Amino acid sequence: MRQNLFIFQKKTTIYSKRMYLRDYQTVKERRLALEKMLTISLKEIGGSLVDERIASQKNCENMIGTIQVPLGIAGPLSIKTDLSQEDLYLPLATTEGALVASINRGTKALTLSGGAYVTEKTIGITRAPVFVVENLQKANVFIQWVENHTKEIKKIAEATGSHITLLDTKIWHNGKNVFVRFLFDTQDAMGMNMATIATTEIAAFITSQTHIPSSSISSNLCADKKPNYLNFIEGRGRQVWADATIGAEVLQSVLKTTSEQFFDTAQRKLTSGSLLSGSIGANAHMANVLSAIFLATGQDIAHVAECAVGITEVEKSGKDIYISVFLPDLIVGTVGGGTMLPTQREALNILGVQGGNHGQNAKRLAQIIAASVLAGEVSLLAALSSTDLAKAHEKLARGGKR
Amino acid sequence: MRQNLFIFQKKTTIYSKRMYLRDYQTVKERRLALEKMLTISLKEIGGSLVDERIASQKNCENMIGTIQVPLGIAGPLSIKTDLSQEDLYLPLATTEGALVASINRGTKALTLSGGAYVTEKTIGITRAPVFVVENLQKANVFIQWVENHTKEIKKIAEATGSHITLLDTKIWHNGKNVFVRFLFDTQDAMGMNMATIATTEIAAFITSQTHIPSSSISSNLCADKKPNYLNFIEGRGRQVWADATIGAEVLQSVLKTTSEQFFDTAQRKLTSGSLLSGSIGANAHMANVLSAIFLATGQDIAHVAECAVGITEVEKSGKDIYISVFLPDLIVGTVGGGTMLPTQREALNILGVQGGNHGQNAKRLAQIIAASVLAGEVSLLAALSSTDLAKAHEKLARGGKR
Amino acid sequence: MRQNLFIFQKKTTIYSKRMYLRDYQTVKERRLALEKMLTISLKEIGGSLVDERIASQKNCENMIGTIQVPLGIAGPLSIKTDLSQEDLYLPLATTEGALVASINRGTKALTLSGGAYVTEKTIGITRAPVFVVENLQKANVFIQWVENHTKEIKKIAEATGSHITLLDTKIWHNGKNVFVRFLFDTQDAMGMNMATIATTEIAAFITSQTHIPSSSISSNLCADKKPNYLNFIEGRGRQVWADATIGAEVLQSVLKTTSEQFFDTAQRKLTSGSLLSGSIGANAHMANVLSAIFLATGQDIAHVAECAVGITEVEKSGKDIYISVFLPDLIVGTVGGGTMLPTQREALNILGVQGGNHGQNAKRLAQIIAASVLAGEVSLLAALSSTDLAKAHEKLARGGKR
Amino acid sequence: MRQNLFIFQKKTTIYSKRMYLRDYQTVKERRLALEKMLTISLKEIGGSLVDERIASQKNCENMIGTIQVPLGIAGPLSIKTDLSQEDLYLPLATTEGALVASINRGTKALTLSGGAYVTEKTIGITRAPVFVVENLQKANVFIQWVENHTKEIKKIAEATGSHITLLDTKIWHNGKNVFVRFLFDTQDAMGMNMATIATTEIAAFITSQTHIPSSSISSNLCADKKPNYLNFIEGRGRQVWADATIGAEVLQSVLKTTSEQFFDTAQRKLTSGSLLSGSIGANAHMANVLSAIFLATGQDIAHVAECAVGITEVEKSGKDIYISVFLPDLIVGTVGGGTMLPTQREALNILGVQGGNHGQNAKRLAQIIAASVLAGEVSLLAALSSTDLAKAHEKLARGGKR
Repeated sequence: MRQNLFIFQKKTTIYSKRMYLRDYQTVKERRLALEKMLTISLKEIGGSLVDERIASQKNCENMIGTIQVPLGIAGPLSIKTDLSQEDLYLPLATTEGALVASINRGTKALTLSGGAYVTEKTIGITRAPVFVVENLQKANVFIQWVENHTKEIKKIAEATGSHITLLDTKIWHNGKNVFVRFLFDTQDAMGMNMATIATTEIAAFITSQTHIPSSSISSNLCADKKPNYLNFIEGRGRQVWADATIGAEVLQSVLKTTSEQFFDTAQRKLTSGSLLSGSIGANAHMANVLSAIFLATGQDIAHVAECAVGITEVEKSGKDIYISVFLPDLIVGTVGGGTMLPTQREALNILGVQGGNHGQNAKRLAQIIAASVLAGEVSLLAALSSTDLAKAHEKLARGGKR
Repeated sequence: MRQNLFIFQKKTTIYSKRMYLRDYQTVKERRLALEKMLTISLKEIGGSLVDERIASQKNCENMIGTIQVPLGIAGPLSIKTDLSQEDLYLPLATTEGALVASINRGTKALTLSGGAYVTEKTIGITRAPVFVVENLQKANVFIQWVENHTKEIKKIAEATGSHITLLDTKIWHNGKNVFVRFLFDTQDAMGMNMATIATTEIAAFITSQTHIPSSSISSNLCADKKPNYLNFIEGRGRQVWADATIGAEVLQSVLKTTSEQFFDTAQRKLTSGSLLSGSIGANAHMANVLSAIFLATGQDIAHVAECAVGITEVEKSGKDIYISVFLPDLIVGTVGGGTMLPTQREALNILGVQGGNHGQNAKRLAQIIAASVLAGEVSLLAALSSTDLAKAHEKLARGGKR
Repeated sequence: MRQNLFIFQKKTTIYSKRMYLRDYQTVKERRLALEKMLTISLKEIGGSLVDERIASQKNCENMIGTIQVPLGIAGPLSIKTDLSQEDLYLPLATTEGALVASINRGTKALTLSGGAYVTEKTIGITRAPVFVVENLQKANVFIQWVENHTKEIKKIAEATGSHITLLDTKIWHNGKNVFVRFLFDTQDAMGMNMATIATTEIAAFITSQTHIPSSSISSNLCADKKPNYLNFIEGRGRQVWADATIGAEVLQSVLKTTSEQFFDTAQRKLTSGSLLSGSIGANAHMANVLSAIFLATGQDIAHVAECAVGITEVEKSGKDIYISVFLPDLIVGTVGGGTMLPTQREALNILGVQGGNHGQNAKRLAQIIAASVLAGEVSLLAALSSTDLAKAHEKLARGGKR
Repeated sequence: MRQNLFIFQKKTTIYSKRMYLRDYQTVKERRLALEKMLTISLKEIGGSLVDERIASQKNCENMIGTIQVPLGIAGPLSIKTDLSQEDLYLPLATTEGALVASINRGTKALTLSGGAYVTEKTIGITRAPVFVVENLQKANVFIQWVENHTKEIKKIAEATGSHITLLDTKIWHNGKNVFVRFLFDTQDAMGMNMATIATTEIAAFITSQTHIPSSSISSNLCADKKPNYLNFIEGRGRQVWADATIGAEVLQSVLKTTSEQFFDTAQRKLTSGSLLSGSIGANAHMANVLSAIFLATGQDIAHVAECAVGITEVEKSGKDIYISVFLPDLIVGTVGGGTMLPTQREALNILGVQGGNHGQNAKRLAQIIAASVLAGEVSLLAALSSTDLAKAHEKLARGGKR
């Protein structure tokens, strides 16, 4: 038997004919070719209303149509800052039954409790090239050089666009690697592309002056689209917070629970559970709310990977519940990328934050997301504390067993 | 000044009129009411081709239309298992310019290198209620009871549906909390809802027999939609792997790099960078590929939060590069949820895995995703190693500065 | 300026004469030579009562004497299992003023509350070699081979000593790396050396049969002496738990606090603080208690790096406090290594667990440590909740400012 | 059976008579009483040469004698900075056979390679009280107040001692919790006690001015003696680095390995292994070296829990190996605490860093530890790469199987 140990097993090879996508110029041609080759229908995908000339140039190569995702609405959700209070309807794109209903219940509980208070702090979008030096001694010389040239670096970065500002530079190093993390304000743009362009110029400048090369314009200290403790601790994009106190009556009438039950579930699930499972942060289902709003408003949904690490805090105060959320790493924008697509623009309009507004729209969107996440946490924790999670799914999502 | 320290600041309160969504019955009525109230147009969102009667019942409450996301195609990608080899075209829904082009380049490099070898291990979807005992002594008695009743528990779980099997039960406890993590096979369904229904029945049985209540049917030891080390280490859903060896010629002609450059970037970015940033796993941009395929094929995109924690391994072997990916926590299905929507069904058809097939379709989808993620990693690492990331963005995504 | 960028700076070189330690045979000769060369006195280090012939052969090479650390006693601490209850005095070696006094207060509070209940589960000491295969396909073949030869592997492992049993084998792999984690029971020995010897034999067998080499007999999946989530989640060595309920009277009279204050501090410090700081586990100062008992009883104190990751849980029940600790990764022994040294043997005798006893002594020691850690947590949390931490340090540790 | 489910099992109660330690005044009285009560001998523990009047007042309450740990010497180790180069002998207190020999081999390899280059950056010792506000809005007001009063806070802190400087203040908050992390320079003292005293004064000032109470003077954002990502990323105490290039000849003659083998082991063990096991950092056995030097030089060995999280980087450069270590969280001092004890003072004298020296001694000790850790990593990785780990243990530590 041993002599056969690593013999390659016989295969049933199923080759399909190869079609080369570069041979087709339009969305329609590509789609028709694919339908023919695979002998399938792509009628629905082809039923797009998106202006393909725009989308296929800016958002998606090799485009063959669109994917359509149901959009629901939750609200009104009353959102407060130190300067304003307003009611909003939340656009939520999702394929998961019960989610919109659940968030909707949360918005009701929050609004009846006087609304969600929100606050935001801009950290900046980050890009961190890794430079390669000869050894630690050279690393120290190099780092000192960078620190001595922050003015030139800032000038170079800000010359790449009229909406980008270099906010800060932080450096980590070990061995031959020097990681330089640049933090940029990019106003209403999510800004990852702007940051990449600026960083490319910065890195070129640094290398030209010091002859120290970069091995990658993006090391994993950016750290973009990966859950990590650096972003969690230092923040990335925007840090946002939301809180509310929910009284006994709303707990009972809207949320079908009590402060005792709610707190008990929060403690055991959020705190004990998250610590035992080695989670970054501790929350009920922030990813659900983030995904639905990100998708609706044209955010890059891959950012959910890093954004869904927030902490939900629950305290019992007699018959009331105090609840807050903290998202240290929220990456959003209201211009550029997916925000320019037709349906996504309309969703941003529902929130009143479409387009550029000196950073105020993106900031406002971040605050709204914080409040929405709070609504989601309130509702799910209440549901779990009154043990009706499965019932909700069973009733709303299916009308029967799969 | 101090006496004013905590005086509530004056607000500019901006109340909007409240519209109650429950007053409207159809998608159109809701949308029109919202348009009227907010004095905005929702024409594009309303241009949906989705059968709203289905979607609004099963996928989304308070539906007002759809969000449309461009769908591109990458491929062909040659994928190998021990038993098969075939060429596939990958449906990728994204709003981020350059992504499809990048993955496409990766598929070309892999296919020219003989294809991506893939392998999969089913771990099972999990649900972990937390039971509350009086103290540690009672915890031990309770745990023993559960372990002595695995047969009954299995029977109860499997009576909730014909496509669910209880695979395993793992227990953690501290203080008064006993977390019981049930692992289910749910064939071609992602299975979170099925697992919740089964776990609800199990928990009811356990509580009825032991008088030990559960505080939450879902503790954070499931752990669903949160990045965490429990899933990373024990696996969740499916563990998948893909690898390939890319020769010098393909590295040069397709990827515009060398094995030296590629390896150097991988070491400094993936390894050093991920360790320094405290990342779970170490990869270049798995979240991008996962998001695009998840969205195209009707997966729950909130799962990106937990799935994007894989490890990409790169080794240099002379002029060649060996590269592999490992995703320990991949949550996918080919029936139920968003997979039933029209455009998403078509996308699954492109991959030949639409619908139920005794678990084989979901397994195949998981393998395809592993290979796709490998393609994405190959292409981005190559781009970074040849420092053309920003150029790619600049050229493909915008045609100029924002 | 730039041309000087990387010029090596001028150094003040201070070379000392080189003495070669291998030229000296006895502890005394070495010490005298060092005294002479460095022109310092090593009288206290040389004042050792340790039998240098034993220690220098088994515990320490190039021995020149001993380091002496004050040993204090805390207790009595009443410790309960399902089968026993007894009062114990805890030997604590420390240089940090206030620590013994603090633990002593905790033992008093626990003993007056009826004692600490303790429970233990043996996971096994682990060693995980990494084998190197050609690719993923070969990895699968190799893993299957290992799984098919568990009986032979067990036999080989257990032939290396009469006190070692192979309990389990777990495998992780990615890319070319296959990590095989062996779990051993080693009775009353900590067992890391026994496990290494057994694993060396296993690895030699596997390589001889499969021609697959190991790159390291110890990969970082053991994972020995490093804080990590694998050990935290899967356990290593022994998992131990301890709990107690402390009534209002003891809280007031002994701990100078209330259940409200105690719980408030526990919530904000342990839970919120640990989540925000990205800690593995959540505790007040387990490392202090572990260090002091490890040092007193001859444990390998480097294991503190992995053991100090436990979770302390606090619940308020009216005027009472329920508190428990969970240490998932406790590595201790009562034979071998430092446990054989004279003072350390006596410390083990204080606890009645010196020497081998079919695994019962090490198990008992683990339980005692759990109870001791609980005492430490009770006392420090109480002190913090009544804000007398600094006062305790100021009074006990120094008698004045430094 | 169910009716018996939670019946308390019958116990064999073994009460010992209770002795109260407070009834005894001297070390000897306590020890004799314990010997009598437990009918054991504590002769060796009582054979202490430590001045019990000093130790029992400042380092250890309820003292009954000392624990003695063998002290070995490794070296000479050549250590370089930009300004100096010198040869040193390392005092290593350990009970683990083979450790000193292993480090000694590492020092030889480094010294023959021209020495270890070391560099240090002072971050500061930290203490982080948690203040409790009413809600997020109040948190913002409070944070602003603290930021507006940094001058007063600095003054208050620095009035608590002539050797303490407040370097920085960082704030995190979520819900009602505001964590204020103060970073202090404490010159040659480890400084935790000094930081606690200063922070107590600061907190009292803040509370008196704002009426915002602190719940704990030490939240887990300090974070003292717990492995955590906050310290890893932001640094704590001192960040230190060391590196060296080891040529082919030394690799062969001293380390019995090659650059290929060494790099291969480093990649698979350090990198792949650490990523898969969810380790903070990635190293071979930093905890061993830290423990041995900490114990020898009177450091608080509980700090090993947080310090052993460094990263070891290995690169292959033809036939040479470049290796570096980075310890982001090194907590050491040369005055106060255990450094004042007789044997520990002598060990510090061996290194030439005993006592206060305007922070230069502690800095120098930190650098020496970095170089020592590098020696330990070099030797163990070499041993693993040439598969002689078990042989070393077998030969040096025991002279036979246990």
